[in-house]
Amino acid sequence: MSTFNVELKKVVDDSYEIEIGYELGQKLIDDIKSGLVGKINKFAVVTDSIVKDLYAEKIYNLLIQNGYKSDLIVFPEGEKSKTRETKEFIEDSMLAKGYHRDCCIIAVGGGVVTDIAGFVAGTYGRGVPFINYATTLLAAADASVGGKTAVDTPLATNLIGLFNQPKKVYIDISTWKTLPQRQVSSGLAETIKHACISSREFFDYILNNMDAIFENNDEVCQHIAHENCKVKYHVVMKDERESGLREILNLGHTVGRAIETVSEYKLLHGEALSIGLIAEVKLANKLGYCTDEDETLLIKALEKAKLPVKIPDYIDREELVKKLYTDKKVKNGQLRFVLQKGIGDIMVFDGEQYAKPISEEMAREIIMAME
Amino acid sequence: MSTFNVELKKVVDDSYEIEIGYELGQKLIDDIKSGLVGKINKFAVVTDSIVKDLYAEKIYNLLIQNGYKSDLIVFPEGEKSKTRETKEFIEDSMLAKGYHRDCCIIAVGGGVVTDIAGFVAGTYGRGVPFINYATTLLAAADASVGGKTAVDTPLATNLIGLFNQPKKVYIDISTWKTLPQRQVSSGLAETIKHACISSREFFDYILNNMDAIFENNDEVCQHIAHENCKVKYHVVMKDERESGLREILNLGHTVGRAIETVSEYKLLHGEALSIGLIAEVKLANKLGYCTDEDETLLIKALEKAKLPVKIPDYIDREELVKKLYTDKKVKNGQLRFVLQKGIGDIMVFDGEQYAKPISEEMAREIIMAME
Repeated sequence: MSTFNVELKKVVDDSYEIEIGYELGQKLIDDIKSGLVGKINKFAVVTDSIVKDLYAEKIYNLLIQNGYKSDLIVFPEGEKSKTRETKEFIEDSMLAKGYHRDCCIIAVGGGVVTDIAGFVAGTYGRGVPFINYATTLLAAADASVGGKTAVDTPLATNLIGLFNQPKKVYIDISTWKTLPQRQVSSGLAETIKHACISSREFFDYILNNMDAIFENNDEVCQHIAHENCKVKYHVVMKDERESGLREILNLGHTVGRAIETVSEYKLLHGEALSIGLIAEVKLANKLGYCTDEDETLLIKALEKAKLPVKIPDYIDREELVKKLYTDKKVKNGQLRFVLQKGIGDIMVFDGEQYAKPISEEMAREIIMAME
Repeated sequence: MSTFNVELKKVVDDSYEIEIGYELGQKLIDDIKSGLVGKINKFAVVTDSIVKDLYAEKIYNLLIQNGYKSDLIVFPEGEKSKTRETKEFIEDSMLAKGYHRDCCIIAVGGGVVTDIAGFVAGTYGRGVPFINYATTLLAAADASVGGKTAVDTPLATNLIGLFNQPKKVYIDISTWKTLPQRQVSSGLAETIKHACISSREFFDYILNNMDAIFENNDEVCQHIAHENCKVKYHVVMKDERESGLREILNLGHTVGRAIETVSEYKLLHGEALSIGLIAEVKLANKLGYCTDEDETLLIKALEKAKLPVKIPDYIDREELVKKLYTDKKVKNGQLRFVLQKGIGDIMVFDGEQYAKPISEEMAREIIMAME
């Protein structure tokens, strides 16, 4: 018996910049010209069937006008497209069009587009660079930091994927204007959650500037996007591989994800999250970590964000309780909840635990008592 | 416009150990008990339909006997299984059996098994650890170092995949006894190639110990496995992302891969490589980088390794010349060859180039003149 040691220790720099502003297509071209992705001159623009006409075609045209080789690769919009089949479709399109390793993928769209395009980029030719051009508030709040890419399978959500960092992210606030109000509100749910876990000041800012957000006010929207990135970055930086601290990003999601599933996706993610945040602030209140005032203020913010604050009648509450057990924080068959401490901070339990075991009885009691 | 900087600089240690020896199943169990993959106690043993009965079931039984949760996941043997469909099959099997992120994949088999299992491991739950238990000389020569994992698609070989390093590799020399002679010879072709690019001493050792290799002599086989790892490691270390130096591992492959394809895979990879090595040493000789003696000695070694040294009659030589252009070293429509310098060294051309542009006329002349 003998051994051979393969020494592979190295410094990896995955740092990147997030550009926040209005109409960033030309800025993207300027960055590419300045060497953002080196000497690469072939760009696969990946998008969905809605964003194609709104923004992706513009980016594609700019690339062509500036002398780059480019192709638009379009898949049907919606969460149901986040599959291995769509990944294969993108790969096969790129192969058929002769893309080799010396190319770059530009994802133009919301979270579904950036998730799947980032995953394709991670395995195409064993890894090509990618750039995210985010066109939704949700993508700005959620998908711009963290490096998570994935597809869904019939048996699991987001379980097949990679940690893969983009070369740069563009958050184009002008695109929020074309979002349906429900989508803006959905993105605001994640934004309010970010405030709840990190900063009372940010929470108050959102509350006091809600109208300006819906009016697409430049300064306010830029601040919102910037703070979202900051909160997520600070959490993710400390826990890149999702071992502990990242769980706090799950605030509201234990009940939220369950409602989203039981609603059969009639509720958007952020809408379900809104109801989940309320259930969980009530739980925190019951346990003495929040006051009645905190609870009332959070509900007020969610209402101003035009989000649902009651459990819809069509939701079977017993089924909802049962569905809580599919949460990924469940350990040894025991429900676990992230709990906020007032507004702007989070409870930490003994031994650096960010999720507390909660009995089914207590969870049921909260859910049954909700409007 | 404002920017937010995501700083993600870190030290990554992907180092691992290659264990070379006889019957290493118990050693694997001992390593797992000693914490090779931390506290993980669920192991998906991935293998093919031939290796299952020979070795994988043994590993699986050892895991079960030692109190670990384990499942055998078996796909049909052969290069044709190296597809996205097989990857999905393995993923779905693991999902159906309740494997979450806290699991480890053990690949038991040759290069196809370790390539595909390593790829699955890279994207299951955004990455779970994996261990390679290599059961062929080719896997020992080729797949143990470099971190390349991939699947084939109808439009491309090895283009969808990842760089992903195993936690440990076991090279079980006892398994070579059950390999058909053609497979041992095929592995020897890569071994002889490694000697040609790195060490005249290693070349002479192979030549002088050929009988001992075929007799599965412990000491000789261990030395062969060890040297294979060493050569590949030194090349790969200096060029992990395949930008330049790695091209020298391509010696013999420009013609070799083309013959393999034109033969419609009637020739094993190593058999095609053997013919490719001869074509390319003749080219090097013609260009003055090798002598007639070098050429004769290389042919002698390949013959002793029971490898083909002539182009089979059924190969259309014009088709072969055409096929050379599908080589990945082709640049701007120009054929490029790695060329050996005597035996044990490689030519380096101006500006750190390891592959030299060669005219189609010269390539054709060599191929037409071969036996």
